Amino acid sequence: MKLVVLRIGHRPVRDKRITTHVGLTARALGASGMLLAADDPKIKESIDDVTRAWGGDFFVEIGVNWREAIKQWKEQGGMVVHLTMYGLNLPDVTSEMQNRDLMIIVGAEKVPPAIYDLADLNVAAGSQPHSEVAALALLLDHLQDGRELARTFDGVRREIVPMRKGKMVIEQT
Amino acid sequence: MKLVVLRIGHRPVRDKRITTHVGLTARALGASGMLLAADDPKIKESIDDVTRAWGGDFFVEIGVNWREAIKQWKEQGGMVVHLTMYGLNLPDVTSEMQNRDLMIIVGAEKVPPAIYDLADLNVAAGSQPHSEVAALALLLDHLQDGRELARTFDGVRREIVPMRKGKMVIEQT
Repeated sequence: MKLVVLRIGHRPVRDKRITTHVGLTARALGASGMLLAADDPKIKESIDDVTRAWGGDFFVEIGVNWREAIKQWKEQGGMVVHLTMYGLNLPDVTSEMQNRDLMIIVGAEKVPPAIYDLADLNVAAGSQPHSEVAALALLLDHLQDGRELARTFDGVRREIVPMRKGKMVIEQT
Repeated sequence: MKLVVLRIGHRPVRDKRITTHVGLTARALGASGMLLAADDPKIKESIDDVTRAWGGDFFVEIGVNWREAIKQWKEQGGMVVHLTMYGLNLPDVTSEMQNRDLMIIVGAEKVPPAIYDLADLNVAAGSQPHSEVAALALLLDHLQDGRELARTFDGVRREIVPMRKGKMVIEQT
Protein backbone atom coordinates (compact mmCIF):
# COMPACT_ATOMS: atom_id res chain seq x y z
CA MET A 1 0.00 0.00 0.00
CA LYS A 2 1.65 3.20 -1.23
CA LEU A 3 0.18 6.47 0.04
CA VAL A 4 0.77 9.81 -1.67
CA VAL A 5 -0.90 13.14 -0.89
CA LEU A 6 -1.89 15.55 -3.66
CA ARG A 7 -2.41 19.02 -2.21
CA ILE A 8 -4.50 21.32 -4.40
CA GLY A 9 -5.89 24.84 -4.07
CA HIS A 10 -2.86 26.04 -2.11
CA ARG A 11 -2.45 29.83 -2.03
CA PRO A 12 1.18 30.66 -1.18
CA VAL A 13 0.76 33.21 1.63
CA ARG A 14 -2.59 32.31 3.10
CA ASP A 15 -2.13 28.53 3.15
CA LYS A 16 1.55 28.29 4.01
CA ARG A 17 1.11 26.92 7.50
CA ILE A 18 -1.84 24.65 6.79
CA THR A 19 -0.11 23.11 3.77
CA THR A 20 3.04 22.61 5.85
CA HIS A 21 0.92 20.84 8.48
CA VAL A 22 -0.61 18.68 5.71
CA GLY A 23 2.87 17.69 4.50
CA LEU A 24 4.30 17.00 7.95
CA THR A 25 1.24 14.98 8.93
CA ALA A 26 1.54 12.95 5.73
CA ARG A 27 5.20 12.26 6.49
CA ALA A 28 4.72 11.43 10.17
CA LEU A 29 1.79 9.11 9.48
CA GLY A 30 3.27 6.94 6.77
CA ALA A 31 2.75 8.60 3.39
CA SER A 32 5.60 8.44 0.87
CA GLY A 33 5.37 12.03 -0.29
CA MET A 34 3.33 15.08 -1.18
CA LEU A 35 2.64 16.48 -4.63
CA LEU A 36 1.87 20.18 -4.40
CA ALA A 37 -0.19 21.69 -7.23
CA ALA A 38 1.39 25.09 -6.69
CA ASP A 39 4.83 26.55 -7.10
CA ASP A 40 5.85 27.27 -3.52
CA PRO A 41 9.48 26.32 -2.82
CA LYS A 42 9.25 27.43 0.84
CA ILE A 43 6.86 24.62 1.66
CA LYS A 44 9.23 22.08 0.18
CA GLU A 45 12.19 23.59 2.02
CA SER A 46 10.56 23.48 5.42
CA ILE A 47 9.34 19.90 5.03
CA ASP A 48 12.70 18.76 3.59
CA ASP A 49 14.40 20.33 6.62
CA VAL A 50 12.27 18.19 8.91
CA THR A 51 13.05 15.07 6.92
CA ARG A 52 16.80 15.77 7.05
CA ALA A 53 16.71 16.03 10.85
CA TRP A 54 14.08 13.43 11.72
CA GLY A 55 14.75 10.81 9.06
CA GLY A 56 13.02 8.87 6.33
CA ASP A 57 12.76 9.69 2.64
CA PHE A 58 9.50 11.64 2.36
CA PHE A 59 9.45 13.61 -0.90
CA VAL A 60 7.80 16.92 -1.76
CA GLU A 61 7.26 17.82 -5.40
CA ILE A 62 6.09 21.33 -6.26
CA GLY A 63 4.52 22.83 -9.39
CA VAL A 64 2.57 19.63 -10.07
CA ASN A 65 -0.17 19.58 -12.72
CA TRP A 66 -2.98 17.93 -10.80
CA ARG A 67 -4.93 16.68 -13.81
CA GLU A 68 -1.84 15.00 -15.17
CA ALA A 69 -0.88 13.56 -11.78
CA ILE A 70 -4.34 12.05 -11.25
CA LYS A 71 -4.38 10.59 -14.75
CA GLN A 72 -0.97 8.97 -14.32
CA TRP A 73 -1.88 7.54 -10.93
CA LYS A 74 -4.99 5.91 -12.35
CA GLU A 75 -3.10 4.56 -15.38
CA GLN A 76 -0.74 2.82 -12.98
CA GLY A 77 -3.67 1.10 -11.28
CA GLY A 78 -3.81 3.36 -8.24
CA MET A 79 -6.97 4.52 -6.50
CA VAL A 80 -7.72 8.23 -6.13
CA VAL A 81 -9.59 9.41 -3.05
CA HIS A 82 -10.63 12.95 -2.29
CA LEU A 83 -10.95 14.04 1.32
CA THR A 84 -14.05 16.18 1.67
CA MET A 85 -16.79 16.52 4.25
CA TYR A 86 -19.29 15.78 1.45
CA GLY A 87 -17.94 12.28 0.91
CA LEU A 88 -18.85 8.87 2.31
CA ASN A 89 -17.92 8.47 5.96
CA LEU A 90 -14.46 7.01 6.59
CA PRO A 91 -15.54 4.04 8.76
CA ASP A 92 -17.91 2.92 5.98
CA VAL A 93 -15.27 2.87 3.24
CA THR A 94 -11.98 2.08 4.98
CA SER A 95 -11.99 -1.52 3.81
CA GLU A 96 -12.29 -0.66 0.12
CA MET A 97 -9.21 1.59 0.37
CA GLN A 98 -7.03 -0.75 2.36
CA ASN A 99 -4.14 -2.41 0.53
CA ARG A 100 -4.60 -0.15 -2.50
CA ASP A 101 -2.04 2.36 -3.76
CA LEU A 102 -3.79 5.57 -2.80
CA MET A 103 -3.50 9.11 -4.02
CA ILE A 104 -5.18 11.21 -1.33
CA ILE A 105 -6.36 14.60 -2.59
CA VAL A 106 -6.37 17.25 0.12
CA GLY A 107 -7.96 20.50 -0.99
CA ALA A 108 -7.76 23.96 0.53
CA GLU A 109 -10.92 26.06 0.70
CA LYS A 110 -11.73 26.10 -2.99
CA VAL A 111 -11.53 22.80 -4.85
CA PRO A 112 -12.21 22.56 -8.62
CA PRO A 113 -15.57 20.76 -9.05
CA ALA A 114 -13.90 18.29 -11.43
CA ILE A 115 -12.07 16.75 -8.48
CA TYR A 116 -15.29 15.29 -7.09
CA ASP A 117 -15.78 13.35 -10.33
CA LEU A 118 -12.18 12.44 -11.04
CA ALA A 119 -11.81 10.83 -7.63
CA ASP A 120 -12.78 7.16 -7.41
CA LEU A 121 -14.15 7.93 -3.97
CA ASN A 122 -14.93 11.06 -1.99
CA VAL A 123 -14.35 10.35 1.68
CA ALA A 124 -15.23 12.33 4.80
CA ALA A 125 -13.88 12.11 8.33
CA GLY A 126 -17.33 12.84 9.70
CA SER A 127 -19.80 15.03 7.81
CA GLN A 128 -18.90 18.20 9.66
CA PRO A 129 -16.69 21.15 8.74
CA HIS A 130 -13.35 20.90 10.51
CA SER A 131 -9.84 20.65 9.11
CA GLU A 132 -8.13 18.97 6.18
CA VAL A 133 -5.17 18.29 8.48
CA ALA A 134 -7.40 16.43 10.93
CA ALA A 135 -9.16 14.57 8.14
CA LEU A 136 -5.86 13.45 6.62
CA ALA A 137 -4.58 12.25 10.00
CA LEU A 138 -7.73 10.19 10.59
CA LEU A 139 -7.66 8.67 7.11
CA LEU A 140 -4.00 7.64 7.40
CA ASP A 141 -4.55 6.28 10.90
CA HIS A 142 -7.64 4.24 10.02
CA LEU A 143 -6.02 2.83 6.88
CA GLN A 144 -3.08 1.56 8.92
CA ASP A 145 -5.00 0.60 12.09
CA GLY A 146 -2.88 2.98 14.18
CA ARG A 147 0.32 1.05 13.42
CA GLU A 148 1.83 4.16 11.80
CA LEU A 149 2.14 5.78 15.24
CA ALA A 150 4.81 3.26 16.18
CA ARG A 151 6.83 3.50 12.97
CA THR A 152 10.49 4.45 13.06
CA PHE A 153 12.49 6.39 10.47
CA ASP A 154 15.86 5.66 8.92
CA GLY A 155 18.72 8.14 8.78
CA VAL A 156 17.73 9.94 11.96
CA ARG A 157 19.76 12.87 13.30
CA ARG A 158 17.32 13.83 16.03
CA GLU A 159 15.17 11.46 18.01
CA ILE A 160 12.73 11.79 20.90
CA VAL A 161 12.70 9.58 23.95
CA PRO A 162 9.02 9.59 24.98
CA MET A 163 8.50 10.93 28.51
CA ARG A 164 5.50 11.26 30.83
CA LYS A 165 6.85 14.65 31.98
CA GLY A 166 9.56 16.86 30.47
CA LYS A 167 11.46 16.57 27.17
CA MET A 168 14.25 14.28 26.08
CA VAL A 169 15.86 14.47 22.64
CA ILE A 170 18.88 12.55 21.39
CA GLU A 171 20.94 14.45 18.83
CA GLN A 172 23.33 12.54 16.60
CA THR A 173 26.48 14.50 15.83
CA MET B 1 -16.11 11.32 29.75
CA LYS B 2 -16.08 15.09 29.26
CA LEU B 3 -13.48 16.45 26.83
CA VAL B 4 -12.39 20.08 26.81
CA VAL B 5 -9.54 21.62 24.82
CA LEU B 6 -7.32 24.31 26.30
CA ARG B 7 -5.50 26.18 23.54
CA ILE B 8 -2.40 28.04 24.70
CA GLY B 9 0.33 30.07 22.99
CA HIS B 10 -2.08 31.43 20.37
CA ARG B 11 -0.81 34.56 18.58
CA PRO B 12 -3.80 36.41 17.06
CA VAL B 13 -2.60 36.97 13.49
CA ARG B 14 -0.14 34.15 12.96
CA ASP B 15 -2.20 31.37 14.53
CA LYS B 16 -5.69 32.40 13.47
CA ARG B 17 -6.27 29.58 11.01
CA ILE B 18 -4.56 26.83 12.97
CA THR B 19 -6.45 27.71 16.15
CA THR B 20 -9.71 27.77 14.19
CA HIS B 21 -8.86 24.29 12.86
CA VAL B 22 -8.13 23.15 16.43
CA GLY B 23 -11.53 24.42 17.58
CA LEU B 24 -13.48 22.98 14.66
CA THR B 25 -11.72 19.64 15.02
CA ALA B 26 -12.51 19.58 18.73
CA ARG B 27 -16.18 20.29 17.97
CA ALA B 28 -16.50 17.79 15.12
CA LEU B 29 -14.81 15.01 17.08
CA GLY B 30 -16.78 15.15 20.29
CA ALA B 31 -15.22 17.73 22.62
CA SER B 32 -17.58 19.96 24.63
CA GLY B 33 -15.69 23.18 24.10
CA MET B 34 -12.45 25.09 23.74
CA LEU B 35 -10.87 27.43 26.28
CA LEU B 36 -8.61 29.91 24.52
CA ALA B 37 -5.82 31.43 26.58
CA ALA B 38 -5.80 34.57 24.42
CA ASP B 39 -8.20 37.39 23.78
CA ASP B 40 -9.20 36.80 20.16
CA PRO B 41 -12.94 37.31 19.56
CA LYS B 42 -12.65 36.46 15.85
CA ILE B 43 -11.81 32.85 16.61
CA LYS B 44 -14.86 32.55 18.81
CA GLU B 45 -17.06 34.20 16.17
CA SER B 46 -16.01 31.89 13.37
CA ILE B 47 -16.44 28.72 15.43
CA ASP B 48 -19.76 29.92 16.86
CA ASP B 49 -20.94 30.55 13.28
CA VAL B 50 -20.20 26.92 12.42
CA THR B 51 -22.05 25.69 15.50
CA ARG B 52 -25.10 27.80 14.67
CA ALA B 53 -25.31 26.28 11.18
CA TRP B 54 -24.18 22.72 11.85
CA GLY B 55 -25.64 22.15 15.31
CA GLY B 56 -24.61 21.09 18.78
CA ASP B 57 -23.63 23.25 21.74
CA PHE B 58 -19.86 23.50 21.46
CA PHE B 59 -18.60 26.46 23.51
CA VAL B 60 -15.60 28.72 22.97
CA GLU B 61 -14.35 30.82 25.87
CA ILE B 62 -11.69 33.45 25.19
CA GLY B 63 -9.30 35.33 27.48
CA VAL B 64 -8.87 32.29 29.73
CA ASN B 65 -6.15 32.26 32.40
CA TRP B 66 -4.56 28.88 31.72
CA ARG B 67 -3.02 28.38 35.17
CA GLU B 68 -6.37 29.01 36.81
CA ALA B 69 -8.23 26.78 34.32
CA ILE B 70 -5.83 23.85 34.88
CA LYS B 71 -6.03 24.26 38.66
CA GLN B 72 -9.85 24.28 38.64
CA TRP B 73 -10.01 21.25 36.34
CA LYS B 74 -7.78 19.26 38.68
CA GLU B 75 -9.71 20.36 41.76
CA GLN B 76 -12.85 18.95 40.14
CA GLY B 77 -11.15 15.60 39.70
CA GLY B 78 -10.38 15.95 36.01
CA MET B 79 -7.23 14.72 34.27
CA VAL B 80 -4.99 17.15 32.37
CA VAL B 81 -3.15 15.89 29.31
CA HIS B 82 -0.77 17.89 27.17
CA LEU B 83 -0.39 17.00 23.51
CA THR B 84 3.28 17.17 22.59
CA MET B 85 5.60 15.13 20.43
CA TYR B 86 7.82 14.71 23.51
CA GLY B 87 5.16 12.77 25.41
CA LEU B 88 4.34 9.08 25.77
CA ASN B 89 2.94 7.57 22.61
CA LEU B 90 -0.85 7.63 22.31
CA PRO B 91 -1.39 3.86 21.83
CA ASP B 92 0.56 3.20 25.05
CA VAL B 93 -1.54 5.50 27.23
CA THR B 94 -5.03 5.54 25.68
CA SER B 95 -6.44 3.22 28.34
CA GLU B 96 -5.40 5.42 31.25
CA MET B 97 -7.21 8.40 29.70
CA GLN B 98 -10.40 6.60 28.72
CA ASN B 99 -13.51 7.39 30.78
CA ARG B 100 -11.81 10.32 32.53
CA ASP B 101 -12.87 13.95 32.28
CA LEU B 102 -10.02 15.28 30.18
CA MET B 103 -8.62 18.73 29.67
CA ILE B 104 -6.50 18.46 26.52
CA ILE B 105 -3.85 21.16 26.27
CA VAL B 106 -2.99 22.03 22.67
CA GLY B 107 -0.03 24.39 22.39
CA ALA B 108 1.13 26.52 19.50
CA GLU B 109 4.84 26.72 18.74
CA LYS B 110 5.98 28.05 22.11
CA VAL B 111 4.57 26.36 25.19
CA PRO B 112 5.48 27.55 28.71
CA PRO B 113 7.74 24.88 30.26
CA ALA B 114 5.44 24.73 33.31
CA ILE B 115 2.82 22.99 31.16
CA TYR B 116 4.93 19.83 30.93
CA ASP B 117 4.88 19.55 34.72
CA LEU B 118 1.33 20.71 35.36
CA ALA B 119 -0.06 18.08 32.99
CA ASP B 120 -0.78 14.68 34.53
CA LEU B 121 0.41 13.17 31.28
CA ASN B 122 2.24 14.41 28.21
CA VAL B 123 1.02 12.47 25.20
CA ALA B 124 2.33 12.25 21.63
CA ALA B 125 0.63 11.11 18.43
CA GLY B 126 3.91 9.58 17.25
CA SER B 127 7.27 11.07 18.26
CA GLN B 128 7.63 13.12 15.09
CA PRO B 129 7.02 16.81 14.38
CA HIS B 130 3.73 17.27 12.55
CA SER B 131 0.63 19.22 13.53
CA GLU B 132 -1.30 19.94 16.69
CA VAL B 133 -4.50 19.66 14.63
CA ALA B 134 -3.58 16.14 13.52
CA ALA B 135 -2.50 15.16 17.03
CA LEU B 136 -5.77 16.38 18.51
CA ALA B 137 -7.80 14.49 15.91
CA LEU B 138 -5.94 11.26 16.63
CA LEU B 139 -6.27 11.63 20.40
CA LEU B 140 -10.03 12.28 20.20
CA ASP B 141 -10.50 9.42 17.75
CA HIS B 142 -8.53 6.88 19.77
CA LEU B 143 -10.25 7.86 23.02
CA GLN B 144 -13.65 7.23 21.45
CA ASP B 145 -12.69 4.25 19.26
CA GLY B 146 -13.78 6.10 16.13
CA ARG B 147 -17.41 6.30 17.29
CA GLU B 148 -17.24 10.12 17.21
CA LEU B 149 -17.19 9.99 13.38
CA ALA B 150 -20.77 8.74 13.39
CA ARG B 151 -22.15 11.23 15.91
CA THR B 152 -25.01 13.53 15.03
CA PHE B 153 -25.67 17.06 16.24
CA ASP B 154 -28.85 18.64 17.60
CA GLY B 155 -30.31 21.90 16.31
CA VAL B 156 -29.00 21.46 12.79
CA ARG B 157 -29.70 24.03 10.08
CA ARG B 158 -27.37 22.53 7.49
CA GLU B 159 -26.67 18.84 7.03
CA ILE B 160 -24.66 16.76 4.57
CA VAL B 161 -25.92 13.66 2.81
CA PRO B 162 -22.72 11.62 2.30
CA MET B 163 -22.06 10.91 -1.38
CA ARG B 164 -19.49 8.83 -3.26
CA LYS B 165 -19.35 11.57 -5.93
CA GLY B 166 -20.66 15.14 -5.85
CA LYS B 167 -22.12 17.19 -3.01
CA MET B 168 -25.49 17.10 -1.32
CA VAL B 169 -26.48 19.46 1.48
CA ILE B 170 -29.88 19.82 3.12
CA GLU B 171 -30.64 23.34 4.33
CA GLN B 172 -33.39 23.89 6.91
CA THR B 173 -35.24 27.12 6.41
